[in-house]
Amino acid sequence: MPYFDAASSAPLHPVARQALQASLDEGWADPSRLYREGRRAGLLLDAARQTAAEAVGCRPDELVFTPSGTHAVHSGMSGALHGRRRVGLHAVVSSVEHSSVLHAASAHASGAGGTVSEVPVDRYGAVDPDGYAAALRADTALACLQSANHEVGTEQPVSAVAEICRGRGVPLLVDAAQSLGWGPVEGAWSLLTASAHKWGGPAGVGLLAVRKGVRFAAPGPADERESGRAPGFQNIPAIVAAAASLRAVRAEAAAEAARLRALVERIRARVPELVPEVEVVGHPVRRLPHLVTFSCLYVDGEALLHELDRADFSVSSGSSCTSSTLTPSHVLRAMGVLSEGNVRISLPLGTPEAEVDRFLEVLPGVVSGVRERFGAPVASAPATAPSPVPVPVPAAGREDDGGGGERVVDALGRRCPIPVIELAKVFGEVPVGGTVAVLSDDEAARLDIPAWCEMRGQEYVGERPADHGVAYVVRRVS
Amino acid sequence: MPYFDAASSAPLHPVARQALQASLDEGWADPSRLYREGRRAGLLLDAARQTAAEAVGCRPDELVFTPSGTHAVHSGMSGALHGRRRVGLHAVVSSVEHSSVLHAASAHASGAGGTVSEVPVDRYGAVDPDGYAAALRADTALACLQSANHEVGTEQPVSAVAEICRGRGVPLLVDAAQSLGWGPVEGAWSLLTASAHKWGGPAGVGLLAVRKGVRFAAPGPADERESGRAPGFQNIPAIVAAAASLRAVRAEAAAEAARLRALVERIRARVPELVPEVEVVGHPVRRLPHLVTFSCLYVDGEALLHELDRADFSVSSGSSCTSSTLTPSHVLRAMGVLSEGNVRISLPLGTPEAEVDRFLEVLPGVVSGVRERFGAPVASAPATAPSPVPVPVPAAGREDDGGGGERVVDALGRRCPIPVIELAKVFGEVPVGGTVAVLSDDEAARLDIPAWCEMRGQEYVGERPADHGVAYVVRRVS
Repeated sequence: MPYFDAASSAPLHPVARQALQASLDEGWADPSRLYREGRRAGLLLDAARQTAAEAVGCRPDELVFTPSGTHAVHSGMSGALHGRRRVGLHAVVSSVEHSSVLHAASAHASGAGGTVSEVPVDRYGAVDPDGYAAALRADTALACLQSANHEVGTEQPVSAVAEICRGRGVPLLVDAAQSLGWGPVEGAWSLLTASAHKWGGPAGVGLLAVRKGVRFAAPGPADERESGRAPGFQNIPAIVAAAASLRAVRAEAAAEAARLRALVERIRARVPELVPEVEVVGHPVRRLPHLVTFSCLYVDGEALLHELDRADFSVSSGSSCTSSTLTPSHVLRAMGVLSEGNVRISLPLGTPEAEVDRFLEVLPGVVSGVRERFGAPVASAPATAPSPVPVPVPAAGREDDGGGGERVVDALGRRCPIPVIELAKVFGEVPVGGTVAVLSDDEAARLDIPAWCEMRGQEYVGERPADHGVAYVVRRVS
Repeated sequence: MPYFDAASSAPLHPVARQALQASLDEGWADPSRLYREGRRAGLLLDAARQTAAEAVGCRPDELVFTPSGTHAVHSGMSGALHGRRRVGLHAVVSSVEHSSVLHAASAHASGAGGTVSEVPVDRYGAVDPDGYAAALRADTALACLQSANHEVGTEQPVSAVAEICRGRGVPLLVDAAQSLGWGPVEGAWSLLTASAHKWGGPAGVGLLAVRKGVRFAAPGPADERESGRAPGFQNIPAIVAAAASLRAVRAEAAAEAARLRALVERIRARVPELVPEVEVVGHPVRRLPHLVTFSCLYVDGEALLHELDRADFSVSSGSSCTSSTLTPSHVLRAMGVLSEGNVRISLPLGTPEAEVDRFLEVLPGVVSGVRERFGAPVASAPATAPSPVPVPVPAAGREDDGGGGERVVDALGRRCPIPVIELAKVFGEVPVGGTVAVLSDDEAARLDIPAWCEMRGQEYVGERPADHGVAYVVRRVS
């Protein structure tokens, strides 16, 4: 049962399990109490803090345990923003941060009257340090940058951005959720956050490190625990397990990174050979060792995940149809890459090579099966040929000639990947130099139609409002 | 090694341990994912929610899991206050709520510009429902009342207060942290909070129930998990353990409550017989079954806890010297009872009778030993007699006659219990009708000198500012 979604949550590491069970008997009491059960719990907590601080590369008194990575981000951002509110209310984030960062930034804007600048990324999902240099202002209270992207694996230039921030006197918060198991974050960061269940620790434990000298003022209700930065009774057995497993994964990180990087490299190389019309996204070199993401044209992401699950592979997707809001992943959107048929593979520690090979065997059939069901115009299954199985999906959109030589495809009311499939189906009938306008009210079309043009070497002219939804206009250039 | 501090944190219940271990393999994945590991985790979470909702007495979709009881209180109060902000910004709490409630109320006042009314308690620590009726206003957004007090065990008239609140259209949040293991909270409450480690569940799990129809708007960063009311990745194994152990303790609650109530009754009856100058506090009848609190005159709380710990008993205290802020417990202060030498006994499930008997054997010697070290004027060890062991504590305060027939005792710079001891030492030398002014800058004196008068049948005249600190004036009436 290959589980390829470690970036969501990793299975419990054996060391975490051992440490959890061993500390259940000693770690349940209140560590602030003076009696022996409290002192024992306190010793466990101190030792875990020491271990975690070593792995982070900070002093133990700079590190607190939070109930989750999300809490670490929320507390870290609100504490830093509140601590520097006299400097100003401006925050800088990248456009591909984890939703916890972006949501905290939104809350800062709506609740505290702050302003937020988003630094864009390139097609690989990486920020340019100059983008941060340009975004920082005299009233900037905090900048945030992830160490590596959670959806496409691209590593960010944290050291360079940290230097720029230091030069301007602005603290940098680094969300290290995806990378901390692989190694410490280099550079002059001011705050750092992480989440234990990403490295095989238990759920319920986040880390927040705040360097000495960083102004920090937690704005919420007072609480004496964890230096006033993380309210609530500590879950010490889970904290002990988190720290022990972080040390354990670090001990094997170099060897395991090399091994998984080779497996990921195999996926990156083989998928485009095995599956037509695929875009592998994320930086080809500066990336996490265990994570690879690709998108498949003419594929419904939810159907793809479902078929992969039936074939025993658990993966994740940034496609709009797998999101509760029916919008594509903000990361893929910021990168300007295809979102339909999106698959994220993130290999847990110890993934056997055979599972990756099996995935590569299974994937082509799964993708072509989904494409067939949607009547996609791929070489192996021409869209005009009768479908070999009953088609349970909506029939093709109505087509019309909008006049002026522009072919109009009405895909209103149809969700990803139908608008792109309809575009592809008629495109061969359009003369070179002619245009097609795809009418769509699906948010994914705004991303996927330009991405289709990029992949197929055609010209994306732009969008214009239509009676219902938007007309996305494409010119045939070859 | 008797542990008598279940009200701080209970040892892990065997059912919690089993459930935790059993769900480590199935509960680590993201329950919002579509693949099998996610679905399994989701099923565990759904089942735990169903179990917990049955125990609380609400619908499963009214209940969310939070990372702690403190988070449940903070989220519950801020969500209810924010949800009803158009009604007004006034909140009502009792003066003996848990610090998480009072701190959230303070944050509401300072951060959101709200106002807070505190409903007083009687000498037993109970509110009068009429106090709530008087405190509610047209702009009251939320009222809060604990089900039972965490320091003295007194049960509050929740049903009556809930009726009053309902009649006035104000939601009532009930902090049920201390009582939920014993039974559901009766009455028409609107929100309810609790904490699993108080009933033998693991740390890291709180409950927040919000009745349908209660206006609720979480003011912090958006998060899709737990109905948007508790951000962060859920700790499902801990949640499963929390729910399973709640059901387990409920199954034994009636029998165990009767058994522990008898043991607590023994402590309540025997301690005043065995130890002179003791005040047992909290309601004699309407109280939690497992909790009893008493205070010992002329005793340093920290020394008492230390000696009890040496004798293998782990207990808690609301004395100022055991607090990081050097102020007595706000609960004892609100009740107007003695805080020095304060001991809270809260028996875990299964406490053997023999441990209670052994405690009653040990306590008198421990208290008299501490009193001797502090030169306390007790019958068994007159203050004027030479101390049998070297005294490592400060020598007696300077005494002076302030003129006008008032005896002045200068206890400036001396901490609890010294000011009361110094008062007691000179009191016998003051003629009936004469007064003593105790000069003190110890916050505990404000509570303990009037409490001493109450216990000894003397008249507490009042306080007046002095050059340094405060003069507390006592008149000898017998």
